[in-house]
Amino acid sequence: LDYQHVQVPFEITLWIMLASLAKIGFHLYNKLPSVVPESCLLIFVGLIMGGIIYGLNDRSPPVMDSDIFFLYLLPPIVLDAGYFMPSRPFFENIGTILLYAVVGTIWNVFGIGFSLYGICQVKAFRLQDVSLLHNLLFGSLIAAVDPVAVLAVFEEIHVNEKLHILVFGESLLNDAVTVVLYKLFRSFCEMPTIKSVDVFAGVGKFFVVGLGGVLVGLSFGFTAAFTTRFTKDIRVIEPLFVFLYSYLSYLTAEMFHLSGIVAIISCAMGMKRYVEANISLKSHTTVKYFMKMWSSVSDTLIFIFLGVSTIGENHEWNWPYICFTVIFCLVWRALGVLVLTFFVNRFHVNTITSKDQFIIAYGGLRGAICFSLVFLLPDFHRKKLFIAATTVVILFTVFIQGMTIRPLVDLLAVKRKRESAPTVGEQIHIRFLDHLLAGIEDISGHWGQYYWKDKLEYFNSKYLQKILLREYDQPKSSIVLLYEKLERKHAIELAQAGQLGHGPAHPSFLCSAFLCSSSDRTVIADQKLEDTLNPDVLDYMQEILARNLYRIRRTGPAYNRHTLPGDSEPTEQAKEILILRHKSL
Amino acid sequence: LDYQHVQVPFEITLWIMLASLAKIGFHLYNKLPSVVPESCLLIFVGLIMGGIIYGLNDRSPPVMDSDIFFLYLLPPIVLDAGYFMPSRPFFENIGTILLYAVVGTIWNVFGIGFSLYGICQVKAFRLQDVSLLHNLLFGSLIAAVDPVAVLAVFEEIHVNEKLHILVFGESLLNDAVTVVLYKLFRSFCEMPTIKSVDVFAGVGKFFVVGLGGVLVGLSFGFTAAFTTRFTKDIRVIEPLFVFLYSYLSYLTAEMFHLSGIVAIISCAMGMKRYVEANISLKSHTTVKYFMKMWSSVSDTLIFIFLGVSTIGENHEWNWPYICFTVIFCLVWRALGVLVLTFFVNRFHVNTITSKDQFIIAYGGLRGAICFSLVFLLPDFHRKKLFIAATTVVILFTVFIQGMTIRPLVDLLAVKRKRESAPTVGEQIHIRFLDHLLAGIEDISGHWGQYYWKDKLEYFNSKYLQKILLREYDQPKSSIVLLYEKLERKHAIELAQAGQLGHGPAHPSFLCSAFLCSSSDRTVIADQKLEDTLNPDVLDYMQEILARNLYRIRRTGPAYNRHTLPGDSEPTEQAKEILILRHKSL
Repeated sequence: LDYQHVQVPFEITLWIMLASLAKIGFHLYNKLPSVVPESCLLIFVGLIMGGIIYGLNDRSPPVMDSDIFFLYLLPPIVLDAGYFMPSRPFFENIGTILLYAVVGTIWNVFGIGFSLYGICQVKAFRLQDVSLLHNLLFGSLIAAVDPVAVLAVFEEIHVNEKLHILVFGESLLNDAVTVVLYKLFRSFCEMPTIKSVDVFAGVGKFFVVGLGGVLVGLSFGFTAAFTTRFTKDIRVIEPLFVFLYSYLSYLTAEMFHLSGIVAIISCAMGMKRYVEANISLKSHTTVKYFMKMWSSVSDTLIFIFLGVSTIGENHEWNWPYICFTVIFCLVWRALGVLVLTFFVNRFHVNTITSKDQFIIAYGGLRGAICFSLVFLLPDFHRKKLFIAATTVVILFTVFIQGMTIRPLVDLLAVKRKRESAPTVGEQIHIRFLDHLLAGIEDISGHWGQYYWKDKLEYFNSKYLQKILLREYDQPKSSIVLLYEKLERKHAIELAQAGQLGHGPAHPSFLCSAFLCSSSDRTVIADQKLEDTLNPDVLDYMQEILARNLYRIRRTGPAYNRHTLPGDSEPTEQAKEILILRHKSL
Repeated sequence: LDYQHVQVPFEITLWIMLASLAKIGFHLYNKLPSVVPESCLLIFVGLIMGGIIYGLNDRSPPVMDSDIFFLYLLPPIVLDAGYFMPSRPFFENIGTILLYAVVGTIWNVFGIGFSLYGICQVKAFRLQDVSLLHNLLFGSLIAAVDPVAVLAVFEEIHVNEKLHILVFGESLLNDAVTVVLYKLFRSFCEMPTIKSVDVFAGVGKFFVVGLGGVLVGLSFGFTAAFTTRFTKDIRVIEPLFVFLYSYLSYLTAEMFHLSGIVAIISCAMGMKRYVEANISLKSHTTVKYFMKMWSSVSDTLIFIFLGVSTIGENHEWNWPYICFTVIFCLVWRALGVLVLTFFVNRFHVNTITSKDQFIIAYGGLRGAICFSLVFLLPDFHRKKLFIAATTVVILFTVFIQGMTIRPLVDLLAVKRKRESAPTVGEQIHIRFLDHLLAGIEDISGHWGQYYWKDKLEYFNSKYLQKILLREYDQPKSSIVLLYEKLERKHAIELAQAGQLGHGPAHPSFLCSAFLCSSSDRTVIADQKLEDTLNPDVLDYMQEILARNLYRIRRTGPAYNRHTLPGDSEPTEQAKEILILRHKSL
């Protein structure tokens, strides 16, 4: 037996296997995941595993390594989040999201930091040795909402798209703020004196870290798109580039102390549309599937490790400090959301209701990022207290808030995500309104989102597409594309139903179907002329009709974190056929 | 700048990126890969890289780590090879393959070892300090044909299936022999005296290592198939299990000093048919695609590293020894193939021609496995000589033999792989003959391959399928399945051609098509009765006909290592639709 030799890969494989089997286990009992979020169940599995390891070895089980977390487990989740980010709601609400992410996080950091410092002044709690700077440092790591935890819970409760993107977008973009504040306070802790210059330099860093991340991400994203122009003869390594460039963008950003999360999201969002057009259909399926799979496994491992790491003797249980941390986290977040939303609502027609505000405040879950950051703290005598407080806050938010948020959403009757995909009419009208608003903004000289969207689209079709796409066609009207999509959808539906090729054999069905479609009424006359036409012409007409008629169908893809959007849904197949056809044409 | 922090993943990602970009580069110039095999080009890139590193640092570039090779780079390639192994030719020739792999490899090891020992006795060469045991040890690592090198070359030259499987199967299965002999001689080198018991124990080990590998592999494979029974609600992690269980089988086998290559191949071949039936279509696409991608990247990295590792000062250039090694490798392999084929041909009707024998002997390429094994040798004063000899043999076989084998195949007019897929008629006849031969073998009491195949199929449908498949149906006749497959293929072809739904509208086309199909002649009469039947009945008949008619089409999927079989071919889509329909029915 030579265990030493294979130990590293063997143990990694076994952990992933455990995580995957745990996931299967939960889904075998359908009732369980509908009551308790999967993240809670996974932490619970982790706690049991940790307990077993602790019991067998009689020493604390290994703690999740911060390097492993930040370098290997976090990137797949963020990449998945960025790649499948619904871009329309995201950019429509980008102002609000940034406000929550930047101002809201700063508010929380200082609020929690100063109030905890106040608690430390109470002599009865024996916490007078925790300085203000240490409290602010702790505040900076505990204040940030965690994207992994938010995703895990919010994707199961199906709130409306705007609410989802507000909480989720905030959790992603606050990374820049967290990175800056955490590093700032940590360096302050080690400095003998703090000059005002350092503070101003810290403020300037916000922009460097955030915008630098965006720049790094976009440059890698466009390089990825450009690379996939040349993979036509070697399809099989196409998916690789998507992963390699995204990961490089993350690592490069981390290397320069920029925000890796912001970088990988920009990279994914920047490359997506070009890569999708360049790579083959199967490569794209593989990319999507593997991204989902990878993020799902990372996510599972993070929660299990979180549970395992909780067990042990790393904690100092000073309950007043811990309890007040939990309370302040809740209170300052609630206050922050209230105040910020007040300002947001003054400038928007489509306001955020008070129910939504409650869910935004309540959905501020903390997770593995805080946990990893607290372990990265330099050693000082109260580190174990911070670890204990962070653990309790994470468990409280994930278990108590995570488990009660679904009943609360039901109770408050928060507006849910619409179940059905938008109809053709709706899609056409949305596009029409977009153009109309862009025109109005242009005339009135107001540089709003529609104006910028229009400019960006122009820049994209004028320059970017020519450089980044392999087969650059004059862009078709989106309505034409939609029509083609629906036609293919119909084709594949027919093929699946085994009714292939007998539809048009029934003239009655054909005509009745046609009467419902209002695109072209002249053929009704043709049908009346049936007798006067020769069979060949009639056949030809029937052929045209058969090819051009479609049924409008509503599909209701239920959104779930662990299924691909439209998995085995006809929409997806129709889209794939569309891509296929699009290339063959 | 914090490079230290991200160094490991950053450098790994950059190496993979380099490998992928090199691959794209070759394929941009279409002429290059058609003359020089990709493996040569990659080694060349590696040599340049190694030269640059050597020039910049003024010390030998890092050598490919044997652990990295055996634990991370080799398994994906072998998994890919096992998963896509054409099982029919493999099992038809299993006897011949095993003879080449076991007896042939032993023949080569002892042949090369003893002849080199003879060379060492020549005083002029100053090699008298190399003992017989060391020569045999060297023989054991240099004798084995390398699956990675063989795959890289043979998949580009498209020789006939039997020839391909003979060389490739040998290169895979000789791993068990190589492992045993290598470890045996290595332990003998360290022993003061060798007892005859040790030699007999060594012989016994062959069976343990080989059969143990098969057992480990099959048990993991069946566990994988069993696990995928329960993934219906969580499709997204399905592909993971295929990779995890295969990798675990490899690691477990390595841990117990069994043959990891044999284990992973058994695992892949054992699980394939059950996993394919259990997992979703998209999961399966992802599995296939990722396997190809992964093996392609591993393969590329191996050849680049091989090039990089060649540069440096690890070599002792004793030219007589090196040249005689190359010569003996060629001579003993040629002799071995001649002698073994002589015996094989005596017991087979379908003999191996002398052209085939030449290609088998000439195709005995050495590769990265030898290279890794030679670096794993315990330190002794002539290790650098062995490294030099191994490097030269690998470069000689990959460059000279690899580049000349294609012209030789053309020159000798070796029978090529047939370009077209077998027609329906052929498939039916092959199956019919299988049943017939199984019956003949049963009656005559001869336990040949058809007898065993029949028994295995019975055992499979009686027990294994019930345990391992999620939705166990009474197995349909393979002809019915083939028919369904063709029907779906037709459907998807129609949908793709945009002719959906207007075929049956032409009664003339319908009838002429029908006249060609000989399955049911009664409907011709129906067509004459057209006037006497009411339209509903006619419609119903037309529907049945439309569903049941098909065109037989020949497709010519060209086989290439870096494309998925049937990539974007209608056959594949038809198969996918078949799987889809099979589940929905």
